[in-house]
Amino acid sequence: MREEEYKAELNSIAEAVYDRIKRALQSDGFVTEPHLREVGGSYLEHRGKCLRPALLTFCSRAVAESECDSLPAAAAVEMFHTGTLMHDDVIDHDDFRRGRPTAHVRGRLLAEKELPAEVDAAEYGSVLAILGGDYVFGAALDMLLRTQCAPEVLRSISRRMAGKLNAELLSGEQLDVRLSLTPWSAVTEETIMQMMRGKTGALLAYCAETGVAIGEGRPPEESSIAGKMSDFAHLCGLAFQMKDDLLGIFGDESKFGKPIGSDIREGKRTVLMLRALQNASNADTKSLLAVLGKKEANQEEIENARAIVTRTGAEKAVADLSEAYVNQALAILEKNLPAGNPKAYLRQWALSMVARSV
Amino acid sequence: MREEEYKAELNSIAEAVYDRIKRALQSDGFVTEPHLREVGGSYLEHRGKCLRPALLTFCSRAVAESECDSLPAAAAVEMFHTGTLMHDDVIDHDDFRRGRPTAHVRGRLLAEKELPAEVDAAEYGSVLAILGGDYVFGAALDMLLRTQCAPEVLRSISRRMAGKLNAELLSGEQLDVRLSLTPWSAVTEETIMQMMRGKTGALLAYCAETGVAIGEGRPPEESSIAGKMSDFAHLCGLAFQMKDDLLGIFGDESKFGKPIGSDIREGKRTVLMLRALQNASNADTKSLLAVLGKKEANQEEIENARAIVTRTGAEKAVADLSEAYVNQALAILEKNLPAGNPKAYLRQWALSMVARSV
Repeated sequence: MREEEYKAELNSIAEAVYDRIKRALQSDGFVTEPHLREVGGSYLEHRGKCLRPALLTFCSRAVAESECDSLPAAAAVEMFHTGTLMHDDVIDHDDFRRGRPTAHVRGRLLAEKELPAEVDAAEYGSVLAILGGDYVFGAALDMLLRTQCAPEVLRSISRRMAGKLNAELLSGEQLDVRLSLTPWSAVTEETIMQMMRGKTGALLAYCAETGVAIGEGRPPEESSIAGKMSDFAHLCGLAFQMKDDLLGIFGDESKFGKPIGSDIREGKRTVLMLRALQNASNADTKSLLAVLGKKEANQEEIENARAIVTRTGAEKAVADLSEAYVNQALAILEKNLPAGNPKAYLRQWALSMVARSV
Repeated sequence: MREEEYKAELNSIAEAVYDRIKRALQSDGFVTEPHLREVGGSYLEHRGKCLRPALLTFCSRAVAESECDSLPAAAAVEMFHTGTLMHDDVIDHDDFRRGRPTAHVRGRLLAEKELPAEVDAAEYGSVLAILGGDYVFGAALDMLLRTQCAPEVLRSISRRMAGKLNAELLSGEQLDVRLSLTPWSAVTEETIMQMMRGKTGALLAYCAETGVAIGEGRPPEESSIAGKMSDFAHLCGLAFQMKDDLLGIFGDESKFGKPIGSDIREGKRTVLMLRALQNASNADTKSLLAVLGKKEANQEEIENARAIVTRTGAEKAVADLSEAYVNQALAILEKNLPAGNPKAYLRQWALSMVARSV
């Protein structure tokens, strides 16, 4: 399959998903407060890449014998994702996402513009980000529950989103916070991997299982394919994360969106940096530890840290890991899905997870 | 029906509900982070009064032709309620609830005890309150989705919790925040009533409708009784709130739990205080406005404010309003439900909402 064909299909899914989301949010008469409505809907105003809805949709089509209704579920995972992002952003004090102000910043700007000067605008912004995320999370489940499928399938995929997925994701976020407070000497690769499985993998796995369940018309726990595709999704998630960590150190700011070296200045706990620390000379370890988490690190220090990550072999090792994960994922795909267009789309989808250039 | 009989029944519902909740939370293997588990479960460690689960259960029994499965839904509304409380408490900076530390305080204490001294413990506490509330909210829906009933009933009551109820409640909380930032001169009784309908009434109405739906085996939107019982619940919620506002000014600290005069020191926007301000002499209005929201107000100032609320007739008017709402609610009950034990329990339930002594 040519890449253009894949991109056109991805685009058409994104269009359908955002059209569905837009109509649902606009017609929701139960949100009576304008600021809540504005902040709650802010991450869904502009179309995302829809990698999660696409995964769900392709999985559903790959196993379906006839046309099935996966659009509400595809819209629901996109909404669920943005609800968690709103809470993550206020927790992590991130002020921008995809170049736009995050939810708590939007709320702060509203307060500065419309409320009396003595109001604590930053605090008002945080409140709106909490309530806005809560709203989108509920709206996501409401969307999922519109799916037209067998009752036992609907019950299973809804319980999984509200229960297992939610708990895994929140555990991943909490572990991320905990890791950021843990000294490097006590950080293990296993813990970082566990955090990534929660923060990134859980939702991807959910998309794969749910797509299969809707396509097969049977709950994921009764399917022989759902578990395999969940593994596929988890592996792609790890590959994506490894690539993301490389981009966080070596990425081109203009293409990647994040300031170069921000992962270094934040002291972000990544497999990449942990391996660099483990393989560095004593002098290099010392200078790495001195710059990691140093918010005011200068360009020279950042470049020195990057050079260490390269010469310890960590850059190469993590790039290899990313590739190995994708290859494992593709092998699962090859073995478990029938040939056809959806399978070809899923292959492209997996490759696209690591295709962003450093 | 004698009060003891009602209390015994309420107690037995609370026991079943908390047993169900406890088992669900303890067996949830998807929460892998101990702090998230501890804070998420903290409000459910000690049995609450279970007024919401009781309302749902009685409504369900009042219209059921045979035994029906309302326990998961009863547990779900209690869980949902505590999830919203966790976020409300961190938003309102309330440090205690029912005499125990709130979620963000629990989180802060955990950080102080177990994390390095340089960690911002208060911030860590807020993070845990956000994630903990998210967890309980999802777990509530997961619980609700265990209900064994007709698929169209399950879909409807689940969509209502995640969609309508959630949006109404969040709008009420957001309006509460907005009102607290609005000068008294711009506060209207209508806005306060709207806030109460969102913050208190929406969940009570949901309990009533959902109980009826499970009992009748038909979605609330197809029932002739669900809407009536929703009105009943809303009226009881308003009556409760009026009584609560009286207690917030005139209540006995030892019985009521809140420090006397805290509503005055917070400058809480209540119908009670708005009516006092509207009916007070110019001098009294001036001295009321001077003390409302004054955190360090002394005992004499508080007592002076209380005296004004009484002599303007606001105390009497709001007590009368509370009684009128309950009577309207009881008339709805009388007219729409068949005679029997559940109806008698619901009568007691309505009376108990305003029975707490000033």
